[in-house]
Amino acid sequence: MLQVLKALALMNATRKVLKISSKELAEKIGQSIQTASRKLKELEDEGLIERTLTKDGQFVVITDKGKELLYKEYLDYKRIFEGEGEFVIKGKVFSGLGEGKYYVSLEGYKKQFEEKLGFTPYPGTLNLRIPKEQMFFRAKLDEMDGIKIEGFKTKERTFGEVKAFKCRINGIDGAIVIPQRTHYPKNVIEIIAPVKLREVLGLKDGDWVEVEVIA
Amino acid sequence: MLQVLKALALMNATRKVLKISSKELAEKIGQSIQTASRKLKELEDEGLIERTLTKDGQFVVITDKGKELLYKEYLDYKRIFEGEGEFVIKGKVFSGLGEGKYYVSLEGYKKQFEEKLGFTPYPGTLNLRIPKEQMFFRAKLDEMDGIKIEGFKTKERTFGEVKAFKCRINGIDGAIVIPQRTHYPKNVIEIIAPVKLREVLGLKDGDWVEVEVIA
Repeated sequence: MLQVLKALALMNATRKVLKISSKELAEKIGQSIQTASRKLKELEDEGLIERTLTKDGQFVVITDKGKELLYKEYLDYKRIFEGEGEFVIKGKVFSGLGEGKYYVSLEGYKKQFEEKLGFTPYPGTLNLRIPKEQMFFRAKLDEMDGIKIEGFKTKERTFGEVKAFKCRINGIDGAIVIPQRTHYPKNVIEIIAPVKLREVLGLKDGDWVEVEVIA
Repeated sequence: MLQVLKALALMNATRKVLKISSKELAEKIGQSIQTASRKLKELEDEGLIERTLTKDGQFVVITDKGKELLYKEYLDYKRIFEGEGEFVIKGKVFSGLGEGKYYVSLEGYKKQFEEKLGFTPYPGTLNLRIPKEQMFFRAKLDEMDGIKIEGFKTKERTFGEVKAFKCRINGIDGAIVIPQRTHYPKNVIEIIAPVKLREVLGLKDGDWVEVEVIA
């Protein structure tokens, strides 16, 4: 019934009295004439449309009650697409090998974090393991461009590119960092922040954490 | 199916992986567990959601395809409520008794038309008779406040209040004027404009005209 009301609204029946036969409506909504006719009757009985039959044909207009119903739907959809681009990844805290501390402290990365993310990261990362059912948004990060942290060379070795995503974790702003190397695990994320998240948030291995990604 | 997808989206399943049992969903959508379960299956088969079953329960997330479908709906509703407040009244041209010319020319009204409507009206009105099936929006004018044109007194007599509504008629800006006296006919509107509409639009008695009301 709602879909028919919406179809009428898209033909401007909230703004003008619409001349439409049940046959024309049937074609519009891809249903039988009988169904179209029955749906109009239902809409009329619910007070969502007003219908007038004259010798010139059938005229239909959406009432205020009908408009209110459509507006409620509109607000629902609006809510769905507000804050679009943001999503949440849930994962479980685990202890890394302490590599994070080493990498984050490297001047070549640190400078870029400051410039491109707007904070000086605490030297260390919070590691999260992403369970199977949460992989949908983890996989999204691999498709997304994110913020590019360039690789660099020192005398000893080469450091690869890192992709970063601004995020929020229990109200604290930080960033997900994903090294762009082939063998980096697909079910892990590492988070950097201006503070030591494990301490500030009182986290221990095995705790669940929700990371809001601000895309 | 769309309504279930929307319900999931309102539970944020476009932004996070949602843990939800078929029982919980059934309660949300006011349907049986069986129906809820079947709709989830259908949504999954259509590629609109991804579903994961683990020992911890059922997890659901809306895919990009699902989001696109919802977004299409959103755009439809947005279109419906764009230019909201505007509507169209259709009526048939008829000749009045020439009273319009007299009233519009009265300084007491004319000054207010200029101030409140932004144009000097051609001395005369275009009369439209509104057929039964078009009465929905004609009746709306009686409910709406419109622009108040104050009544006034001369030595000879009293002139009553007039309600005006800005409008557009075949691209020309004008206004509907409705004298606020008890016996003014409910199925008539009179239109004033900076030009002689009958001439500029080549109208004769019996012609249909669409008046866009800018509310």
